[in-house]
Amino acid sequence: MERGVAVKFSIEGIGGLPEITKGADLAALIVDATDLADGDILVITSKIVSKAEGRVVQAADREQAITDETVRVVASRVYEGGVTRIVENRQGIIGAAAGVDASNAPDGEVLLLPVDPDASARALATGIRALTGARVGVILSDTLGRPWREGQTDLAIGAAGMHVFDDLRGSTDASGKPLSVTMPCVADEIAGAAELVKGKSSGVPVAVVRGLGRFVGDLDLPGARSIQRPAERDLFRVGADEAYNEGYRDGFDESQSEGSLAEAE
Amino acid sequence: MERGVAVKFSIEGIGGLPEITKGADLAALIVDATDLADGDILVITSKIVSKAEGRVVQAADREQAITDETVRVVASRVYEGGVTRIVENRQGIIGAAAGVDASNAPDGEVLLLPVDPDASARALATGIRALTGARVGVILSDTLGRPWREGQTDLAIGAAGMHVFDDLRGSTDASGKPLSVTMPCVADEIAGAAELVKGKSSGVPVAVVRGLGRFVGDLDLPGARSIQRPAERDLFRVGADEAYNEGYRDGFDESQSEGSLAEAE
Repeated sequence: MERGVAVKFSIEGIGGLPEITKGADLAALIVDATDLADGDILVITSKIVSKAEGRVVQAADREQAITDETVRVVASRVYEGGVTRIVENRQGIIGAAAGVDASNAPDGEVLLLPVDPDASARALATGIRALTGARVGVILSDTLGRPWREGQTDLAIGAAGMHVFDDLRGSTDASGKPLSVTMPCVADEIAGAAELVKGKSSGVPVAVVRGLGRFVGDLDLPGARSIQRPAERDLFRVGADEAYNEGYRDGFDESQSEGSLAEAE
Repeated sequence: MERGVAVKFSIEGIGGLPEITKGADLAALIVDATDLADGDILVITSKIVSKAEGRVVQAADREQAITDETVRVVASRVYEGGVTRIVENRQGIIGAAAGVDASNAPDGEVLLLPVDPDASARALATGIRALTGARVGVILSDTLGRPWREGQTDLAIGAAGMHVFDDLRGSTDASGKPLSVTMPCVADEIAGAAELVKGKSSGVPVAVVRGLGRFVGDLDLPGARSIQRPAERDLFRVGADEAYNEGYRDGFDESQSEGSLAEAE
């Protein structure tokens, strides 16, 4: 390696894939487009998986599709021009519009997320490993906003054949002190890094990460679903307005029932 | 480039830096440790900037330091063994313990975040550009948890000499449709990517990103502060429990005052 370099990896955006339509053999198309080796991690934009799986509905049905994909409304806000709905979708992912998106969808249509992104990732990893003999990991990525910070980052919504966390709990820092709660979500960090070569407007839906083979593993490792924190353990499980309104109703009712009790005495 | 590669970048973890103490000339030490060229982006763990700036307090003063660094408590939860406090700190960053951290701090001490991470980043970018003649960007990173998802990712808490967003608003997707709200936070994506080579236990506090020169720019571009969403525009500006409790009190009081009015009639 060059002077001073302790460790290194690279990310390549893979061009030249054809337009993906329902039934496309993504594993074969990806293997055709690039050379893969043991330890490589493929980051695949979930949109092309949705297209291959036929997860497409008419744009006119967009609002109904969002409702159908929604398990739980986390927060919503009305603004000039529409409503922003942050929801938990059927995949357990919390984001805007349940992942239903018109960008890079066929004209007049919108794309839904894959039904089970971890299963899709596992099928792709299995297929690509079989075709190449290379032990690769696979991440399906989607673009998501986040609380407190402007803009979006790409995150892992599906994963297979790799560790999604670098679990350092129980290990020590450089000076020997315990890192009790440290567990970097490497799958999210890799998905975000891959966005830097894939972009939104570039027509590059697949990236290959080379040099992070230490995170690649068996096909039955936990997928991206294991990244999702159960709502009951989350300090931000619903929006501030929604929680306030629920509290207000409960407080109002409690006070009223106290009044009723007092009247009855 | 290799077969199929449309675009590529690499990230190198830079080893060999000495232990950083108060007053250290970080720009000179980094320039000594690696070769830099136009368009490179340096991702520097904020901890070594804190050390160079002497942002260290005695571990016994940790709780007081957290209180001192806190502008606003966003959410807190008592659990067996302590309290988790998610706060907005003086830098405007929302995270646990106001960024006060014992890991990789000197024995018996804890590190505070740099007072003004964007200013620190700008000083480093200015110094490194002067020493090398290379037009580089600088990110200061810190490790932060997030709502809804387990684990942590590294994010940009300071930035200089680069665009922190890839502002695609107004541009189009590969099929020509407008990307009206798309604005990837590339500074956060790059900070997270750099964590993959820096790690928490590796003693590698600096990474160099080569191949993303399109994001490098003037030293007076907006810094990481521009990533922070103002609380009043955030659907998750306080925790669900905190918002519920505030609503409950308001609802209870409102009901009581209605009762008082009725009695007075």
